[in-house]
Amino acid sequence: MTNHPDFSLVCPIPISDYPHVLMAHGGGGRLMQQLIQKMFTETFHNAYLDSAHDGAVFNMNAGRLAFTTDSYVVQPLYFPGGDIGELAVHGTVNDLAMCGARPLYLSVGFILEEGLPLETLWYLVQSMGHAAQVANVQIVTGDTKVVDKGKGDGIFINTAGIGVIEHDQTIAPDSVQIGDVIILSGDIGRHGIAIMAQREGLSFESEIESDSASVASAVLALFDADIEVHCLRDLTRGGLASALVEIAQKSQSHIHIQEPLIPVREDVRGACEILGLDPLYIANEGRFIAFIPHEDAENALSILRQDPVSTSALIIGQVTNERQGQVTITSTIGVQRIVDMLSGEQLPRIC
Amino acid sequence: MTNHPDFSLVCPIPISDYPHVLMAHGGGGRLMQQLIQKMFTETFHNAYLDSAHDGAVFNMNAGRLAFTTDSYVVQPLYFPGGDIGELAVHGTVNDLAMCGARPLYLSVGFILEEGLPLETLWYLVQSMGHAAQVANVQIVTGDTKVVDKGKGDGIFINTAGIGVIEHDQTIAPDSVQIGDVIILSGDIGRHGIAIMAQREGLSFESEIESDSASVASAVLALFDADIEVHCLRDLTRGGLASALVEIAQKSQSHIHIQEPLIPVREDVRGACEILGLDPLYIANEGRFIAFIPHEDAENALSILRQDPVSTSALIIGQVTNERQGQVTITSTIGVQRIVDMLSGEQLPRIC
Repeated sequence: MTNHPDFSLVCPIPISDYPHVLMAHGGGGRLMQQLIQKMFTETFHNAYLDSAHDGAVFNMNAGRLAFTTDSYVVQPLYFPGGDIGELAVHGTVNDLAMCGARPLYLSVGFILEEGLPLETLWYLVQSMGHAAQVANVQIVTGDTKVVDKGKGDGIFINTAGIGVIEHDQTIAPDSVQIGDVIILSGDIGRHGIAIMAQREGLSFESEIESDSASVASAVLALFDADIEVHCLRDLTRGGLASALVEIAQKSQSHIHIQEPLIPVREDVRGACEILGLDPLYIANEGRFIAFIPHEDAENALSILRQDPVSTSALIIGQVTNERQGQVTITSTIGVQRIVDMLSGEQLPRIC
Repeated sequence: MTNHPDFSLVCPIPISDYPHVLMAHGGGGRLMQQLIQKMFTETFHNAYLDSAHDGAVFNMNAGRLAFTTDSYVVQPLYFPGGDIGELAVHGTVNDLAMCGARPLYLSVGFILEEGLPLETLWYLVQSMGHAAQVANVQIVTGDTKVVDKGKGDGIFINTAGIGVIEHDQTIAPDSVQIGDVIILSGDIGRHGIAIMAQREGLSFESEIESDSASVASAVLALFDADIEVHCLRDLTRGGLASALVEIAQKSQSHIHIQEPLIPVREDVRGACEILGLDPLYIANEGRFIAFIPHEDAENALSILRQDPVSTSALIIGQVTNERQGQVTITSTIGVQRIVDMLSGEQLPRIC
């Protein structure tokens, strides 16, 4: 929980009465009402939640909206550099940003396992509220369900998000063009390794922290500066490799990257070797790639480097017209190989 | 699964290879891609999903939007009159309708337990697609997570929804006025009893089926006819009683209802007696109440009765200025009592 604000507020529900989540907290009666009003509504405080309605109602200007959802099932619930609460905000905010949208509103759906300590829930709710405030989004509607002990895993969180697209560009794999450069926002592999190290009880000289963060402000700065952006993708499950393969397949373009250019911290690389993992496939929660026309690349880099989440942004490759639908990589020893999607899975329940 | 279309399509994934959900189906690699493309994208087919983006992007006119979410954890996954798949569509569509909105777009987040038969998933996905088609909404974006065997319960589904409000009315507890009549859309208690009967192995002369249905068309017909509508609420967890208590508390009005007017089928009433349950608190998934000014009530009733989900709509009570923030009921033997919210829970995991 490093890097985390100290949430010292006292749980607003007298937890001496019920220190753990009960089935009745999801039953639609008084205990559920108390949980929603005291814990959720007061923490996520805004006019939409206060109306105690079946949903949130708000005004929108005419234009394009983005809509996305993700469920979060990561274990452990806390890990170096983050927790499932802030992850549930960052992940969905970032998916909206990857559509080129300014994130505005989130919904949250909690699936709680009977017996979850209320203190844990209270911490995670505060963490969500804090992350939402930092990312400048409002949590406007929600739902709480409780499942029997042994039928869940502490807490699962779903968030869905709505964002508004304030420019005329079409951000999508289909917009990728030959000659585009591929900008990576920073070093890769930290989120996955932070989780795995925690799970496996590995320790390193310095703790490896997740890169979990909202990248919306960095991305929106590109649009504010009228940079031409063709495609954006955050590097979550499946990592950098899977993101590139998906885009190459969908756009039927050829993506070539240079392995020596891809930043991986030494401790992360060491952990990957111990665990037998390839950093290219490891999940990140605060990293993204941007496909930018060659002539806008320097401008884009200098804008991204001004934002704390992408100070080390750099070009790692480009789009060519050689092998349609494929990703190739030139390795550190100069050998070129094809990058493929994994058929199995490296790291279960990473997000 | 009565009342259900016969989904005879063959599962598009060769299930002989992997008959059950594996951790890798949520891993971001090839198996997950196959699941999404073959099973989800082809069933929910629309241009938004096909773009294989981090979210859906669509145009909206200026105006008011409604946004809502619910997670569905009902057990068993299939029950007389429905299943968790269609419930996940109906529930969220109905929440949008209760905001006075026309439901347009849904997101779906699956949390699958390792070992869930792919055939089950395939059935439920078809059921969702069918329910969405009937309710005239599109499932435009989604997410799939897999949790280890023993850390989930087959399948949990979250849906979030966006709807558009095409009138100028403010539908909310705060809009309730003294003199409003309370219209109930039909008989109560069937969803909860259908689930409990299935769980407890009870059988009745005729099977009791869930009332699970989209009520959006019935509600929207009221707005199309320029009926003044003050508040709407669907009678899910906590049933009719909890919905009324919430509205009375929020609006600080007094709601009085007549028990003899509230329709409960004889077999449902019998089952309630066996199970020791009060039909007023039992969850429904296709029933709602509407608060309508006295002068519009007859018109509203005749419109609602034209829609299959509310053919038996009737007035069950009205709003007075007596006991602020309370609900009272006159029983069948003429005794008046206060209706309160349950502090515990009658029926766990009903939706």
